[in-house]
Amino acid sequence: MNILETIKNPEVLKTMDKRTLELLAQEIRERIINVVALNGGHLAPNLGVVELTLALHSVYSTPRDKIVWDVGHQVYVHKLLTGRNNDFDTLRQYEGISGFPKRSESEHDVFDTGHSSTSISAALGLAQARDLKGEKYDVVAVIGDGAMTGGLAFEALNHAGDLGANLTVILNDNEMSIAPNVGAMSLYLNRLRLDPLYTKRKEDIEYLLKKVPAIGTTMVKVADRIKDSLKYLLVPGMIFEELGFKYFGPVNGHDIGELKTVLNNAKSLNRPVLIHVITQKGKGYLPAQQKPNIFHGTGAFDIKTGKAIKKSQIPTYTEVFGDTLKNLAGQDPKIVGITAAMGEGTGLNGFAQAYPERAYDVGIAEQHAVTMASALALEGFKPVVAIYSTFLQRAYDQIVHDVALQNSPVIFAIDRAGLVGEDGPTHHGIFDLAYLRHIPNLTIMAPKDENELQHMIFTATKHTKGPIAVRYPRGNGLGVKLDKEFEEIPIGKAEVLKKGEDITLLAIGNMVATALDVAELLEEKGIKSTVINARFVKPLDKETIINSVKETKRLVTFEEHSLAGGFGSGVLELCADNNLSPQILRIGIEDLFPTHGNTKKLREVYGLTPEIIFEKINNEFKLGNNNLIKKIAINIIKKGS
Amino acid sequence: MNILETIKNPEVLKTMDKRTLELLAQEIRERIINVVALNGGHLAPNLGVVELTLALHSVYSTPRDKIVWDVGHQVYVHKLLTGRNNDFDTLRQYEGISGFPKRSESEHDVFDTGHSSTSISAALGLAQARDLKGEKYDVVAVIGDGAMTGGLAFEALNHAGDLGANLTVILNDNEMSIAPNVGAMSLYLNRLRLDPLYTKRKEDIEYLLKKVPAIGTTMVKVADRIKDSLKYLLVPGMIFEELGFKYFGPVNGHDIGELKTVLNNAKSLNRPVLIHVITQKGKGYLPAQQKPNIFHGTGAFDIKTGKAIKKSQIPTYTEVFGDTLKNLAGQDPKIVGITAAMGEGTGLNGFAQAYPERAYDVGIAEQHAVTMASALALEGFKPVVAIYSTFLQRAYDQIVHDVALQNSPVIFAIDRAGLVGEDGPTHHGIFDLAYLRHIPNLTIMAPKDENELQHMIFTATKHTKGPIAVRYPRGNGLGVKLDKEFEEIPIGKAEVLKKGEDITLLAIGNMVATALDVAELLEEKGIKSTVINARFVKPLDKETIINSVKETKRLVTFEEHSLAGGFGSGVLELCADNNLSPQILRIGIEDLFPTHGNTKKLREVYGLTPEIIFEKINNEFKLGNNNLIKKIAINIIKKGS
Repeated sequence: MNILETIKNPEVLKTMDKRTLELLAQEIRERIINVVALNGGHLAPNLGVVELTLALHSVYSTPRDKIVWDVGHQVYVHKLLTGRNNDFDTLRQYEGISGFPKRSESEHDVFDTGHSSTSISAALGLAQARDLKGEKYDVVAVIGDGAMTGGLAFEALNHAGDLGANLTVILNDNEMSIAPNVGAMSLYLNRLRLDPLYTKRKEDIEYLLKKVPAIGTTMVKVADRIKDSLKYLLVPGMIFEELGFKYFGPVNGHDIGELKTVLNNAKSLNRPVLIHVITQKGKGYLPAQQKPNIFHGTGAFDIKTGKAIKKSQIPTYTEVFGDTLKNLAGQDPKIVGITAAMGEGTGLNGFAQAYPERAYDVGIAEQHAVTMASALALEGFKPVVAIYSTFLQRAYDQIVHDVALQNSPVIFAIDRAGLVGEDGPTHHGIFDLAYLRHIPNLTIMAPKDENELQHMIFTATKHTKGPIAVRYPRGNGLGVKLDKEFEEIPIGKAEVLKKGEDITLLAIGNMVATALDVAELLEEKGIKSTVINARFVKPLDKETIINSVKETKRLVTFEEHSLAGGFGSGVLELCADNNLSPQILRIGIEDLFPTHGNTKKLREVYGLTPEIIFEKINNEFKLGNNNLIKKIAINIIKKGS
Repeated sequence: MNILETIKNPEVLKTMDKRTLELLAQEIRERIINVVALNGGHLAPNLGVVELTLALHSVYSTPRDKIVWDVGHQVYVHKLLTGRNNDFDTLRQYEGISGFPKRSESEHDVFDTGHSSTSISAALGLAQARDLKGEKYDVVAVIGDGAMTGGLAFEALNHAGDLGANLTVILNDNEMSIAPNVGAMSLYLNRLRLDPLYTKRKEDIEYLLKKVPAIGTTMVKVADRIKDSLKYLLVPGMIFEELGFKYFGPVNGHDIGELKTVLNNAKSLNRPVLIHVITQKGKGYLPAQQKPNIFHGTGAFDIKTGKAIKKSQIPTYTEVFGDTLKNLAGQDPKIVGITAAMGEGTGLNGFAQAYPERAYDVGIAEQHAVTMASALALEGFKPVVAIYSTFLQRAYDQIVHDVALQNSPVIFAIDRAGLVGEDGPTHHGIFDLAYLRHIPNLTIMAPKDENELQHMIFTATKHTKGPIAVRYPRGNGLGVKLDKEFEEIPIGKAEVLKKGEDITLLAIGNMVATALDVAELLEEKGIKSTVINARFVKPLDKETIINSVKETKRLVTFEEHSLAGGFGSGVLELCADNNLSPQILRIGIEDLFPTHGNTKKLREVYGLTPEIIFEKINNEFKLGNNNLIKKIAINIIKKGS
């Protein structure tokens, strides 16, 4: 590490020659590989944009000029060049630097991202602000070809082109976003990339036009008319041109010189420009080049072999979901699987390989996934829409308007619900219960462990009365035995795991295990708990909950979710509607966006560990003052009498 | 009315000659104008699609073939032709037929719509279901050029083109969705419409190619290469062709013969087809032709003059918002206004005319509107995003991820919150508090009347610490005096309107007036109420609420919103978090999608009138048994002693 360490400000790149920049590129790759091999992270996307990022910082001057990184997981190179090389070892760790752009981290980060397809809208807003203020600087959006399939990106292109806004969109085309891309737009980009005609065409046409007049005067007139429309032949990026953008490309995204030339061209134009850059994911690290899918987002790995370090023997929730769906699909031909460019991440790939005719990867298009699923469900199919909790936010309106309103029996498999760890605030799935719970006709479940997950997926495929959702967390299950036979869980029926007369611990999803731990801690103090696995957030098991609350008078709800509007909030509604006023303590996430860091640490920070919850219960119910114990003693005496 | 009355099944259209169909078209127009003049409704869009709908039913056989109507407000002709002529007088009335497609109403309605841009996704789902089942029928989506700017439509085009699905998209191009369209796509369609070259080009090119070989052998080779790419010249609908669709058009949308020919062509192809149809909004009714904007959605009007009947003197909330924004913008150059194709509906047009450089109509693109607003806000502007409650659902993820996560001070003006009346379930704004309340950093207000609305809009423009939302209902205000000077309302501060020791009535928004009425009814029974105008849903005024609840022990919350996760749910959380267990009754909308009908009727049906609420309070607090009165008597005695 020589050059990289000297860079305190990206401006210095402007003074570097091509050879130095290339050496720097090599250093950056090594630095990224070394840190990601330890911390995990988005390796392949960052290795793909090393030269592009160097070229951007060689041509533009941040923070004066503004670069918006779509999705944001490809921002490591940018971070290394903008004063964060020293802290880079803390990447994605608690209180370390984020794996995504963060305004709070650097003035070089102008717009926080994490979800896909937002960059052109953001860049257009920045460009309009600049123009309204009468200032002069450049605004650039860097967006992948996958993100370009998101409707939001199209909405922004359409508006930016219409306004003729002075901004540059870099289309970072690596032929895959996370999985290989799908969609007609992707095929279109492919043609742009591969068709040698595109580059040859211009000279051919000019040659042709020169010859044409020789034919005669009629022809001249015709040729004149045709000339007007010849831009269609001359311009490869027709779609973008039609939408009002000047198209440049395709450009070799690993040639710093070529990139700088094109960027300088774009900079000189005061209009919407789209630069089509071809890059290779994982560039410079063979295992990542060969398996960009695996190295898109990775845990710690061995650099020499590219093999993952310490893979748990316990299956992940995602794996159990994937296996279950594949098994069920073998018996039920009505099951259809839908993913929004996340076949690997959601575990849908096994099913897709076994039943390709019933598997749909719609691209990064969560809205379309849900509306299409509704139509399939209304025609008698059982579409399973597998989307992460945080990304399903984008289809909220479609769930309300296209699914629930028609009571269409779509099945939602909501992965990565709760705290997701190192990806941080853009990716935590802590709002799903709140954004789903008020939707009429919808049933919502969450399993206490991976075994219950398979039964819930099975139950969902049997529930044809309306839409149904299952939320489950990121990462490994609890290591419980997986039943061989699937069981149908009665809708709206909770499970009482433990009976005790002093306090009710009512938990949902992965917090059931925590509640059991808390019950043990309470037991040590002589407090007897009833522990209920709620299973259903909607409908709540009114009878079981009310009976237990009436008995214990004290209630603690547990959820890995926002407290506002979540599971506990639903329980409060249930109690109020039934004229119950128990003393209630709700455990969950306060009104804030949790930061990044490993989930164990985050659970401590946000008060979700058994020990902290035990303390909270102590405080709430005055255990410390022995009040609860006294009350219990009195109760025991009363019962005895 | 002769022909229309004889139509029991649309199949009979196939036997009608052109002249009969044209006479029928005239009858249909008269029928629609007569009913909408009485009931109100979407006049101009329906008058525009009379011939198109006749042609569709002449070529396709519903319900076997499936027609999906995007947005759905242009479905009156379809309803008249599919067995609903007799009931058409009940259009949009309570228990009458809906103004939108309804599966529950007819087997000819295959997918419920109301929001924009869903039809291609739905049609693709239907087409896939058909193919998976091995059945044979046609699937058609009818989508306006405005709806085509929504990202969801693009996502679906992209996917459908890639799959090569057998479906037909009718692009109903009337040069305006609701307002005149914006966006590069709209300009593009304009060029397709107007450029005479498009129709001439094909023959010209063929002529040219025939001549070319005469030049010499080199030229032949070149020409061969060029031929491959000549589709770019031959095909006008390039964007659609690039996305995998076969493009037909532009077609005159008022020529039944021409329409039938093209539709039959499309029917014969087993692939994605897009037919570009040019129609005129309001066709056949002069006032609507001249002012399609006004006659898009209209109340009752006089047929002869086209003038609206009984326009209230009391301004609407929308008007007060529009006037306020315009006034504020004169003093504050940082205020920017953003609408998603609803400049008229949201009242933003006055502002836009006065300050065009600060007004953005982004098209039907709510997601983009919000993300762009966030960037403007981060650069120091005060973007006011004016979107109806139900349409803002589509930007939920952008509010969470692009606005709140960065604490970007965007102002949301949420119109049509609560029950909207005749438009019904797709348009009621009864979920906004539930989908916003859990979002960190967001402040949420709702005014008790139109005067408070102006102060809240003013307050929002002064609140630069984070995002802030104001929700307000459809229709006229209460007729209160509008203060000349704007006042800043302290954030999180409720207003106590009336003090009484027996019960607390805590209301938000337009339910404050209802709470005051209920207080009067209670007063007649000797029950003294404290009435609180909550003003803020987030943050709640902890001090005021808790003090009142401690005093009265009984609490009723009022909201025109879903009970699940709404205002009352937030109040329950507040009470639980502060160890308060009052007896609580929550007034609001149960867990269902309210139907259509006038709002007065709907408030009766869903239990939101003062009289019904009074009864509920009676039952809840056992007023009927005189328990409450007894308790009060005891309290009075106690206090006296």
